[in-house]
Amino acid sequence: MYYHDLREFIGELERRGKLLRWKRPVCKDTELMPLFRLQFRGLAEEERKAFLFERVRDVQGRSLTMQVLAGSYGASREIFALGMGCESPEEVYEKWHHAVNHPIEPVVISSGPVHEEIHLGQEIQEMGLSELPAPVEEPGFSGTIRTTTPFITRDPDTGVRNVGTYSGHFRAPDRMMAGIGTVHHAMIYHWRSARSRKEPLPVAITVGTTPNIVAVGSANIPYGTDELAVAGGIAGRAVELVRCKTVPLEVPATAEIVIEGELSTEWQEPYSAYGEYPGYMAAENKSNAVIKVTAITHRKDAIFTPILVGLPPSESNCISRTCREMILYNFLKYYCNLPVVQEVCCPEAGGGWNFWVIRIKKSHPSQPRQVLYAAAGQDSGGKVIIVVDDDINPKDPEMVNWALSFSMQPHRDVEILEGRVPRLDPSGAPPTLAGARERSFPPPNGTSVLLIDATRKWPYPPVALPKKEFMERALKIWQEEKLPALRLKSPWYGYTLGPWEKEEEENARLIVAGEYLKLGEKMAKRRTRLKT
Amino acid sequence: MYYHDLREFIGELERRGKLLRWKRPVCKDTELMPLFRLQFRGLAEEERKAFLFERVRDVQGRSLTMQVLAGSYGASREIFALGMGCESPEEVYEKWHHAVNHPIEPVVISSGPVHEEIHLGQEIQEMGLSELPAPVEEPGFSGTIRTTTPFITRDPDTGVRNVGTYSGHFRAPDRMMAGIGTVHHAMIYHWRSARSRKEPLPVAITVGTTPNIVAVGSANIPYGTDELAVAGGIAGRAVELVRCKTVPLEVPATAEIVIEGELSTEWQEPYSAYGEYPGYMAAENKSNAVIKVTAITHRKDAIFTPILVGLPPSESNCISRTCREMILYNFLKYYCNLPVVQEVCCPEAGGGWNFWVIRIKKSHPSQPRQVLYAAAGQDSGGKVIIVVDDDINPKDPEMVNWALSFSMQPHRDVEILEGRVPRLDPSGAPPTLAGARERSFPPPNGTSVLLIDATRKWPYPPVALPKKEFMERALKIWQEEKLPALRLKSPWYGYTLGPWEKEEEENARLIVAGEYLKLGEKMAKRRTRLKT
Repeated sequence: MYYHDLREFIGELERRGKLLRWKRPVCKDTELMPLFRLQFRGLAEEERKAFLFERVRDVQGRSLTMQVLAGSYGASREIFALGMGCESPEEVYEKWHHAVNHPIEPVVISSGPVHEEIHLGQEIQEMGLSELPAPVEEPGFSGTIRTTTPFITRDPDTGVRNVGTYSGHFRAPDRMMAGIGTVHHAMIYHWRSARSRKEPLPVAITVGTTPNIVAVGSANIPYGTDELAVAGGIAGRAVELVRCKTVPLEVPATAEIVIEGELSTEWQEPYSAYGEYPGYMAAENKSNAVIKVTAITHRKDAIFTPILVGLPPSESNCISRTCREMILYNFLKYYCNLPVVQEVCCPEAGGGWNFWVIRIKKSHPSQPRQVLYAAAGQDSGGKVIIVVDDDINPKDPEMVNWALSFSMQPHRDVEILEGRVPRLDPSGAPPTLAGARERSFPPPNGTSVLLIDATRKWPYPPVALPKKEFMERALKIWQEEKLPALRLKSPWYGYTLGPWEKEEEENARLIVAGEYLKLGEKMAKRRTRLKT
Repeated sequence: MYYHDLREFIGELERRGKLLRWKRPVCKDTELMPLFRLQFRGLAEEERKAFLFERVRDVQGRSLTMQVLAGSYGASREIFALGMGCESPEEVYEKWHHAVNHPIEPVVISSGPVHEEIHLGQEIQEMGLSELPAPVEEPGFSGTIRTTTPFITRDPDTGVRNVGTYSGHFRAPDRMMAGIGTVHHAMIYHWRSARSRKEPLPVAITVGTTPNIVAVGSANIPYGTDELAVAGGIAGRAVELVRCKTVPLEVPATAEIVIEGELSTEWQEPYSAYGEYPGYMAAENKSNAVIKVTAITHRKDAIFTPILVGLPPSESNCISRTCREMILYNFLKYYCNLPVVQEVCCPEAGGGWNFWVIRIKKSHPSQPRQVLYAAAGQDSGGKVIIVVDDDINPKDPEMVNWALSFSMQPHRDVEILEGRVPRLDPSGAPPTLAGARERSFPPPNGTSVLLIDATRKWPYPPVALPKKEFMERALKIWQEEKLPALRLKSPWYGYTLGPWEKEEEENARLIVAGEYLKLGEKMAKRRTRLKT
């Protein structure tokens, strides 16, 4: 059974050793995110945990009543997978496929814990957002505090709902600035519809939902598909919604916090610097719509959930890369009918967008190119796309570099395509080129994609490692001797990659039987005299 | 003071926690190399050790008197560096520069421990090589046992000495097959000279020397430079040599074992399968010269030193990559007068030959291309060459992929050059194309090189991490809370990459002081009305 609320999920994280409770008072402005960040620069991914800060203060010494939970949505792929109700990261791709194909419509119920406390009117103007312990993400560089969580909006013309993970930058107790890129569905459809009606766009910002809501808000789902129905598909039951107090929207009944408001279609304010997925501070000279906060509702002892954005690896990149993998895997395997696709890896180093490795079980030489072109077409991001053979772990950059080193020839296996979108990639055009269109086209500006077929083009000799039986025997001895614990990387024993001569097998048998002399006698008979 | 012999070096390894003694009897044919190999598939490089097998048996149950020391020359870059007399891997590049520019000629002394036991004539025919505990490297695939250690030869015409690390495959107590590529100096100069004189070529195969001899035997040193003088430069004193018993050559006086012999210029024998640096078994249908063993001399309780070859990472690739780095770093920095070059990394994934990352401190936009062309010209291997900025750790594949993702545009920053040599790279041509020349030229066969300028082309915003002072504060708290030990990766705090607006600094100060309301007031004044 899927988690009813974030708190049930916290319990599951704790049972699995994936939660660290902070009893020590921690300052949200100077200490909290740096502490959480240390994990990403100093621990292996499997060791990372969600951090629950139980006693949060601000830099002015005030104690905040809400707790802060960092990393519950994506401190690691393991934690993301748990959030999807999966036992391991490998399961999420098929789980996603199932959810998209078996959506469950949400249901509206009469009341829920998100309405345990309701702040309106005067309370919003006086305290409002200041009640929320939004931490400073990059102290010293960040020019903002914000939410980065699912926004729920509706197309005022059609009623189509959208759930998208965007930011809301705090500007006053009752005011935010919307951190939504102009290309996102909430802006290009809903906001523009509202604007043509000369109305503001109602918005509900959810904080501290179950992880399925964050997943559907972060993945690119075709416009018109109700993300909350896909979230229901993930959970295996309908998401329960309650009606908002001041806007005509519904929100998950068990969310920790909901900010209700109106996205202005008339007024905008400038951005101030914030961390972005490419790993640099975003400090572009642009503005975005103001949000007027009309209500804040929350559970008792509510938990605030920031998202760590910035230099990869980060939580936002972990969520984004896994969502990208789910989408791309499903696209290639099911929509393009390419069952040769075994795995898609969009490592965090590329923010999930700019570096993709696709593992295939090749059965025809044309497949790597087909996969490369299809992947390039699925999304206009993707700057480096590499196809590798089935025995290469695409998540292991050393093994991918091994494939690049010995299974690929640049002049034969590399192709460069132009006319892509740079998104937030700062390498696309100099910062002095301000316009989005100018930054994209024509070359030399904009982005291109490097397609690499790093699969083997013909049968290869066996991988130079001892055969399985000998490595297994060694492993047994290793354990008997109580030597340091091993984290075995694949491959850890040799295997063939095509026909292997009977002769070579016979030689190997002689050698492992200690019969080098017999091998030598055989070779002596094949001795040849050098031609003069 | 540099090590007088391998045993002194073993003592140093042990003092540094880099040696594991195996008291348990271990079978050299089925267990020894698989045990040593486990480290390379399951431990971080810093945790790898040299393994001293004190009780060696063979698969037929025989106890061998000699010990086997695996990994003393390159189980890790740390161990390689210790062998160079350096405290850390970072020091070896300048140490090499010094040694090449301050060679010390070797001296011949009258006797040395390598002659404590001398086997000649009948003893060679009966026992000979069978006394040596050469382990099976890839049990189940290997069709050979062998030495892979420095060969000493002399040009019979000019007397020029060469030291090169090659293999000697065991074929009989008194016979080996030479594993020397046709392009190596020992073959193209010495062996051909001997052949034109219709004489065999005297050879001395050294086993268990001090690591400086292995380093000079593994690095590409210009023909005519005496490798032993460079080895003296590394040690800071002359290498002491003794005269061989049956061939007109000199060998290091403290070597554990020396095999004296004659490389036939008349007869050759076929290869049988062995692991090679690209990570595949080499099983080409070719032959090489027979070696007649004329003497074996060794120390009492001699120690045999195999080299682990095969799937990267491996000891051979660790040695080879570090030698390649030393050569390429010196070439670029000193010979090409490119002081912008800070570091060269030829990761093991590419066997040291096929994947190079060069870190530069760019001061002019032309430098990345100059570095790329120079590197491509220094050696006709090198299949992927990437230049990165000074803040990117070239040894961290995730950070290199980060640079590829956000500092590079394929259409602008990638170039492909053809007409390279494939060496043992199996991707160059199908195995059915047997001739070395046919495998190289013309395209589509042969190798090409992918040159990538992954440096930033203009000023970037700061790296999205908290400023140093906040990360240091977090680290202090982390330690106070006794949380799991961190291995901090660079970078672990944010830094600027060009001008950063005063305005942004001011905003960051407001935010870290908890003054989001003041920031909001400022932004409210800059509010703009959307154009209709």
